[in-house]
Parts: sequence; structure tokens; C-alpha cells
Amino acid sequence: MRVLDLKQLLVGTPLPTAQFRHERLAKTTGLAVFASDALSSVAYATEEILLVLILAGSAALSYSLPIALAIAGLVAIVTTSYRQTIHAYPHGGGAYIVAKDNLGTVSGLVAGAALLIDYVLTVSVSVAAGIAAVTSALPALFPYRVTLCVLAVIAVAVANLRGVRESGRLFAVPTYLFIASLLILIVYGSLGAIFNFISETPYQEHAPGLQGVGLFLLLRAFASGCAALTGVEAVSNGVQAFKTPEAYNARAVMTWLGTILIVLFLGITYLAYDFGIRPTEHETVVSQLARHVFGAGPLYYEVQAVTMLILLLAANTSYADFPRLASLLAKDRFVARQFANQGDRGVFSNGILVLSALAVALLIAFGGDTNALIPLYAVGVFVSFTLSQSGMVVRWLRLRSPGWRWRVWVNGLGAATTALVMLTIAVTKFAHGAWIVVILIPTLVTVFTLVHSHYADVARQLSLDGAAPPADTPISNTVLVLVGDLHRGVLGALRYARSISPSAKALYVEIDLERTRRLEERWGAWGLGTPLVVLHSPYRSLLKPFLEYVDHLLEIGGEDHYVTIILPEFVPARWWQHLLHNQTALLIKGAMLFRRRVIVADVPYHLR
Amino acid sequence: MRVLDLKQLLVGTPLPTAQFRHERLAKTTGLAVFASDALSSVAYATEEILLVLILAGSAALSYSLPIALAIAGLVAIVTTSYRQTIHAYPHGGGAYIVAKDNLGTVSGLVAGAALLIDYVLTVSVSVAAGIAAVTSALPALFPYRVTLCVLAVIAVAVANLRGVRESGRLFAVPTYLFIASLLILIVYGSLGAIFNFISETPYQEHAPGLQGVGLFLLLRAFASGCAALTGVEAVSNGVQAFKTPEAYNARAVMTWLGTILIVLFLGITYLAYDFGIRPTEHETVVSQLARHVFGAGPLYYEVQAVTMLILLLAANTSYADFPRLASLLAKDRFVARQFANQGDRGVFSNGILVLSALAVALLIAFGGDTNALIPLYAVGVFVSFTLSQSGMVVRWLRLRSPGWRWRVWVNGLGAATTALVMLTIAVTKFAHGAWIVVILIPTLVTVFTLVHSHYADVARQLSLDGAAPPADTPISNTVLVLVGDLHRGVLGALRYARSISPSAKALYVEIDLERTRRLEERWGAWGLGTPLVVLHSPYRSLLKPFLEYVDHLLEIGGEDHYVTIILPEFVPARWWQHLLHNQTALLIKGAMLFRRRVIVADVPYHLR
Repeated sequence: MRVLDLKQLLVGTPLPTAQFRHERLAKTTGLAVFASDALSSVAYATEEILLVLILAGSAALSYSLPIALAIAGLVAIVTTSYRQTIHAYPHGGGAYIVAKDNLGTVSGLVAGAALLIDYVLTVSVSVAAGIAAVTSALPALFPYRVTLCVLAVIAVAVANLRGVRESGRLFAVPTYLFIASLLILIVYGSLGAIFNFISETPYQEHAPGLQGVGLFLLLRAFASGCAALTGVEAVSNGVQAFKTPEAYNARAVMTWLGTILIVLFLGITYLAYDFGIRPTEHETVVSQLARHVFGAGPLYYEVQAVTMLILLLAANTSYADFPRLASLLAKDRFVARQFANQGDRGVFSNGILVLSALAVALLIAFGGDTNALIPLYAVGVFVSFTLSQSGMVVRWLRLRSPGWRWRVWVNGLGAATTALVMLTIAVTKFAHGAWIVVILIPTLVTVFTLVHSHYADVARQLSLDGAAPPADTPISNTVLVLVGDLHRGVLGALRYARSISPSAKALYVEIDLERTRRLEERWGAWGLGTPLVVLHSPYRSLLKPFLEYVDHLLEIGGEDHYVTIILPEFVPARWWQHLLHNQTALLIKGAMLFRRRVIVADVPYHLR
Repeated sequence: MRVLDLKQLLVGTPLPTAQFRHERLAKTTGLAVFASDALSSVAYATEEILLVLILAGSAALSYSLPIALAIAGLVAIVTTSYRQTIHAYPHGGGAYIVAKDNLGTVSGLVAGAALLIDYVLTVSVSVAAGIAAVTSALPALFPYRVTLCVLAVIAVAVANLRGVRESGRLFAVPTYLFIASLLILIVYGSLGAIFNFISETPYQEHAPGLQGVGLFLLLRAFASGCAALTGVEAVSNGVQAFKTPEAYNARAVMTWLGTILIVLFLGITYLAYDFGIRPTEHETVVSQLARHVFGAGPLYYEVQAVTMLILLLAANTSYADFPRLASLLAKDRFVARQFANQGDRGVFSNGILVLSALAVALLIAFGGDTNALIPLYAVGVFVSFTLSQSGMVVRWLRLRSPGWRWRVWVNGLGAATTALVMLTIAVTKFAHGAWIVVILIPTLVTVFTLVHSHYADVARQLSLDGAAPPADTPISNTVLVLVGDLHRGVLGALRYARSISPSAKALYVEIDLERTRRLEERWGAWGLGTPLVVLHSPYRSLLKPFLEYVDHLLEIGGEDHYVTIILPEFVPARWWQHLLHNQTALLIKGAMLFRRRVIVADVPYHLR
């Protein structure tokens, strides 16, 4: 019961089914709820572009401008494309559903695998970047960044296990503060540059670099910057969360989101160029920029604080998406059915726990470093973009609903562009970590398929369809009490055994002659008349002679004969005391697991 | 059974009790068996002294000579002192036994805790130093040192789980090769220095250092060098392993061991001084010395190879000592009794596994770096030296056997010296890691005491002494089959339940009205006439309504009424498939564990 108490303290008391509420969102709150994931990526996208370019010397940094423009164009294409998905799937069209519906199960599973991977990475990358915002402002915390990352994941996980609703109020404050703070930063910074009250030192475009700027490097920088697009699909997954008219509101929010994302991303990238910000290990580009524009005063600290908050909200988004997608896959029997279990508080607890464990493992393995995680990121997102948009193309071609011709063109452009970007990311970041994801997606799809066929097989084997009418012939049953010593616990087990079978026997494995003699002496007084069978063990093994005896009984007993093994167990009062006692019962249960017609029952004797 | 097959492949087939052999050792083989731990420490002791001294600038390095002389004197005192222990405890006098016998249980436990800690450190330090010998010769392996350390521990662990005997033949070759190689190194190196065919660049004693050489630093260098003494007590623990006259042979081996240790340690320290060897991160002092004297030819590689071998043998020594001491503590009920279990092959498998896990954890935590582990080392050894020698003093004072007067002086000198060294080590290395051991020893002693009182309490509670004669009044028993769905597995469980009680009932927790209706419809045809009880669950919890029902039955049933819960479980054919099914059975067993008079039995249905 103590474990249950702890659980209750952490996640709260259970909620009855009737109490699950579903708040409907207006456009402004809807933007706050769904924008955090996409917008938060401007906190690191510019930096990731610069980190690649600087490999070709600081002169190459100015290429960040054309790259940022290309990414802004991509954002425009993808958001337009997704507005159509919202139109077609007003009940929520995640890539898994759209791809499965229109392209078939395998495509759906590929999209599902890609998304699950990316949700894990969203948590890791967002938390790492959020903590980087903190350690940029408070460098003394830098050595503890991995620990801080892990604590942040635990905090978000506990909040989600308690069942935070995607509450507009909760999300609106940091999201709008973040948008406002960065807009002020961009406007004030631009004014400062124009009216010369902030010093400019733009990257020098024509200074000679340490190495030539090749096409591959530029493509890699572009691929790294594409992390800015992660999360833009969130609105299309959650259309049902909007007030009516749902699809109309969601489409409006999608457009706003795309616009704000483009403005913030281009603004930060331009100012970083204009003020000559260079990426460093200990301070983020946004932090350097804010410090340069505002000085190290309250406004600077405010930017760092809201950056951290919106990144934690972005991580939180995956805590809604991952468990939900896992539960969809579980209902379709592609992953363990436990992912579909709703806990006491109406949340998919297993999805939350698995997501947290994987994110923590990644954060530890990659030292809580955003930059190290980025090459794994975005591959999965673009796989799901491509499949989702391709699915929409197939859908329009099939349905031929009004306006289908230009809709095919819009989604076709989206599919072609995202496919190209997906290949660019996979190739340019392959050696830096993308290979992990490239291998993982088909592996997961294989696992999904294996799991599915296992469940189908079990259902078939257990089904009563076509089974013979149940036999009610009596079962014969040999009841054996396994005795290691004669103590109070054994007495209870003997009484119980005799209550379920008058012919119950006690069984003792002899390892030491002297102990057998002593046991036999006392058996007359305490054994309740139960016969005592002694088995000899030349190898000091408890298990082997016992198994041989049971197998012998099963062999001579036939199909309608069962063997019941009664284990007298004493149960210590505290959990740690269990460690101090021989785990014989576990061993025996393990050995009996694969034997037919053997039932194992513990008779507990409770210690104080 | 697959798990058992793997185990058999790794550790071999079981051996019958009669086949355990105990080889008796002659003096030469005895030296080989017991010397590896003590002698191997010359592979790193000099380096540890130099690493401390170099903090005061390379001019301070020449203080290694007086420090080495002090340590050599200490070796002489300790070995003389231990010769007396062998005399008094011809059946083996480990510090735990000697301290418990003469100073009382608490002192024995302190010695036991100190020794257990030091055995773990012996494995970690020896393996780290052994791998350092390898990576000194093959620098390409340096980045993989932690992995190599872990593999080495696993190899030694598997060998010990198979039950390697401390075979003279096996140990003699590397031990004598090591002694011979280092003697040749010392003699040839000295000749080279005398006849000027090897270049000398001694540390300059009077060059100004970066900081002054304080007493604290010298004491810390001395404390680090005291790692050379670890393992000298091994002979006194294993007197019984010698041929008769056991004590005589053991005492002779003790004297040889002390002498060889002093010669090798002083020789290496002097040559390191004379050839101006400085400690570096990537190459050990002994490796630099051998390379300087022999050049990078076959003789150099031979020295590195035998150094690695003797260090692995030293680690192996702990694999005899730790499990044996743990089993002694387990027999006295101070640690979990599982440590006293002998496995199929006559070894204390649990001790071997725990020792390996702890050593691996230390190696990973300290990056496989000998130098980082050294501050934790030797504290425990000197605690046990002090207690063991003090115990001997008390013993002589009590027994007053012939010659007791001078024996008190010898052991008294040993006790006083080792106590002083113990304090020196604890103080000078406290901040560098010794504090961990200083905290750990009393913690372990507290745990031992708690465990002991738990076992005493259990024995008292289970004892039949003074118990009333057993009641054989019949037990009444409500048998409940917990049903989640109607499938083939349930039919078997129902038949079994009816065989142990004709009034068995089936129990179903309703979460979804529709499913209840379908179940009830089919129950008539398949339920074998068993009554079906449906419990309502407003919170979707399976467990809660069920627990309330069981508690109600227990309450109205009274002391002689039991509740038997039958769980129909289907058992998948492969282990990983278990993960795909709801672990309801586990949950229920967990919840029932602390309820009296409740018996849980699985009725398995085996899938193909």
C-alpha cells in the first residue's frame, strides 16, 4: 500500500470517467496550445545553421541569410499544404491516420514510427535547448546541465501523469510572452542597427574561409535549420480541440503560426548576421543576441526565462502526442496493448513513462547537448510530412471532390518539397547521427508487424469459435506442499493443502542428511498426519529432483490430472526484507511456467 | 529452460559435492597463489607516489626515495606481525575472525566491512592498472580502456563462476615471470646506470619547485604509496591451503613475500628516480621504465604482458576472498543468506556476481583510471590491519602462552604503526575520495546489525517452540476465478476451480457495459454452470472493486476462512511476448501480498 500512497502523492487521486473534460479552444488560445512546439524551435534553429557554416570559417556565416530564406519558403509551403489536411480531416489528421487511410498500412506504420522517434527527440532537444537558455544566463549552472535536463523531464512527466489538460490559460502566458519578447528584440535591435545605437559587426561575406564552402556543407546547414519546421503539423492533429467551426478556426491558426514562425526565424537570423554573433559552447545564439541588444539587464533575463518556458511547453506537446499515437497503434494492435490503458487520471500513463525514459536516456547519452542531438532530429518529421502530403494527393485523386485539381497541386508541391528535404537531411546528416533514425524506422515497422501478428495469433488460439462444448469431466489433482524446514508458515500451508485435497503430501528435498533426520523426528508431532516425501539431491540442487518428481507425476497422470504445488512463504513486513530471504518460490514458479497442468500457489505467513 | 542452457554454456555443468577437490600447496606454489595481490601493487605504487609529489613541481619527485624506504619499513613490520597471526590461527585468521574473536562482534564487523570494500577496490584498481599496462604498450587502445576494464572483470567473473581452483600451476607461471622480469629490469637497469650504457637524468633534488613541499603533501604521497601493502594479509587467510606443516610453510611464504615486495618496490622507485621518469596520463611509470631500459623490443612487451597478467590474478584473488567473507557473514546472519548459497559448481555465485557488479560500477564511475580510484583504496586495508593486530595483542595478553611478552610487543608495534598509517591515509586522502570509505564503513556495520536483528526476529516469529499443538479444524475456502473475457484459458481455470471447490464462483469487473452484456450472453453456453459475479467500477480501475470484494469476504469469513483467487493466465511461447500482455496477474499478486488468508493461484493456458 505504501507504493500506492507515493503514487497518489505524485499523480493525485483518481478521477471518475464522467469527470474528464474537454475544453474547446478559441483561435487565440488554440495558437498558444499548438504553437509552442513549432515556435520554440527558433530558439535553436539559427544556431544550428551557424554551427555547420562555421566549419568553413567565420566568413561562411553570412550564408545563413539565403538558407534562412529557403527555410522560410519551406514553412510557407508546408503550412499551406497542411491547411488542406485540416480541411479534409476535421476530426484530426495525424500522419499515421492520413497515410494509413490513403497509402495503406505499411506507409501508416512508417509514418507512425517516424513520429514516435521524433516525439522522443522533441522532448530531448527542447529540454536541452531550454536548459541551455538557463545556463547561458547563469553560467555557474553549466556543469550541472545533464542533471537539470533530467529533472526538467521528470517535472514535465509528473505534471502529465497528473493529467494536465492542454489548458489555454496555462499555455497562453508564456507563448505570447515569447512571441512578444522576440518581436521586441527584433524591432528594437533593428532600430538600434538603423539608428546606430547598437554596434554592428556583420559577418564578412567575402573574407577568405579556412576551407571552401561546398554545396554539401550548405545543404547540411539547411538540413540543420529545418529543425525549425518540427511541430508545425501539431494543429492538424488537434482540429477537434477547437471551437466550432473547428476546421475554419484551425486553418486560421495554421496561417498565423506559419507567419509568426517565418517572422521570428528570419528576424533572429538577420540580427545574428548583422551583429556578428558566433556560436559558442557555453552561450546560445539567442542569449548572445539578447545580451547584445538589451544588455545584461532584466529584459535579457526575461527573454531567457520565457525561452526556457516555451521550450518546456514544446516538450510538453510530445507528452500529449506520443501517448496518443502509441494508444492508436495499441488499439490497432501494433504495439503492446498496455499503451492503450488509461490510468486513474484518464491519461495514457505507460506512454508517458516510456517517452520520459527514452528522452532521459538520449539526454544522458548526448550529454544534454542540443547540437549533438540535432542530426537525429527532423528526419522523422520530414518522413511523416512526405507521407502525409502524399496521402492527401492520393486522396484528392480518388475522391475528385470540388476543387480537387488545384488541391492535388498544393499537396503535390508539399509532398515533393518535403521528400526532397527529407533526402537532403538523411544524406547530409547521415554520418552525424541521422543513420540511427534511418535504421530505426524500418526496425520499428518490423517490430509493429511482429507484434500485430502475435496478437492475431493469440486471439485465434484463445477463440472459442468452433471449440468443442466444454467438458465438465472431473479433474484429478495431486497437491504437494514443498517444505524446506518445519516452522509456523508450514503449518498454515499444510492446513490449506488438506482443505483443497485430503490426499495432500509434503515434499522435502534432502541436501544434508542430518537436517532430514531432524525434520523427520519433528514431523510426527507437527505434520498433521500429512505424508512426507523425501527426495535425494546429489548435486545440492533443490530444483532438479523436484522437477523430476513433478514431471513423473504429470506423465503417469494423463490429460485430466493436475499437480498443485503449495509454497509456504513467509512475507516480511517491509519490502527490503524480501531481499534477505531465499527466492526459492520465484525459482520454482519460473521453472513451472512452461509446464502444462501445473498450478503453483503461495500460502503466505505474514511476519510483523 | 533457455536461460538454464545459457548458464550451462557459460559456467559449465554442475559438479557433485563429492567432486570438490582441495589442492594442498607447497611453498613455491603457495607463494604464487598468495603473492599476486601484494606483488602486483608494485605496478602502480611508485607512480601513485610520484603523482602526488609532482603537484609540488618535478623537483619534489626525489622525495620518492625516503617515502619508499618508509613504506619498505612498514612492509617489514606488517609481515612480521602477520607471521604471528599465522602461528596463532593455523586454520586461517582473516581480520573478521581475529577481530571478532578477540575484540568483540562490532570490531569484527568493522573489519568485515573494511575488507569487503577493499576487495571491491582491489578488483577495480588491479583491473584498471592491468588495462593501463596494455594501453601503455598499445596506445591505440587507450580510448577503449573502460570497455576493456569491463570485459576483463566479466572474464574473471565467468572463470570464477565456473569454479577455477586457486591452482598452483595456473598461478605460478605469471607470478614467477613477473618477479623474474622485474628483477631483470632492476638488475639490468642498475648495471646500465653504473656502466653508463643507459642514460641517467635523476630528479634534481634542489631545483626550485612551483610550490613548497609541505609535510601534508609528503604524508599524502606516503599514503598513496601504501597501496603497495594491500594483499600482504592474504597468506594468513589461507593457511589451510598449505601442505603440512601448514603454519610453518605459511610463515616461510610470508617472509619471502615481504622480502620480494620490498626489493621490487625499492628497485623500481630508485630506477624511476635515477632515469628521471615522470608520471603521464597515457603511459604508466613501469612501462616508461621498461621502455627506457629495454627499448621498445620483445623484452618491453613481455614486461607489459606479465604485468597485466599478475594484475588480473590480483583481481582474481578478491574473487576468492569477497565471496568467502560474504559467506562467513551470511552464516553469522549479518548479510543476506543468499551469499552462503553454493551454486552447482561449488562456488558462492552471489558473492561473485555482487563483487563484479560493484567493481564494474566503480570502473565506469571513475573512468577506468587507477589514479582516481587510489584515494578510496588502502583505507579499508589498514582498518583491517589495525583491528587484526590489536586483536592479536589482546589475545596474547589473555592467553599468556609461552613467549607472550615479546609477541605482544611485535603485534603491538604492528597495531600502532598500522593505526597511524590508517589515520594518515584517512586524513590526507579524505577530500580526494577517502571520505566515501570513511562514511561507508559505519554504514555497512549498521546494515549488518539491522540484517542480523531481522533474521533473529524472523526465526523467533517462525519458531514452533512453545507453539500450541497444531489445530486440524477444517478450513472453509471461497474460490474465485477472475475473468476478463471468455476464452479457452478461462475454461481450464473454471474446471480447475471446480475441482478444488464445487462452490467456486467467477468474478468480472465491469468497465464497459457493452462488454458485460456480451460476456453474460455467452456465459450460459461456456460457463460450466459457474455463477458469474459482476462488480461495477466507476473509476475504470480493475483492482479497486475487486479488492473491496475480497476484503468483504475476508471480514465476514472469520479466522478459519480463506479466499483462493484463481487467475486464468495464458503463457506465450516466447519470453518477449510476455511484455505484450497486460500484467494484471502481477498487479493482483502485489495487492494480495500483504493480505492474510488470501491464496493466489495461476492456471496457465499455454500458447504455441
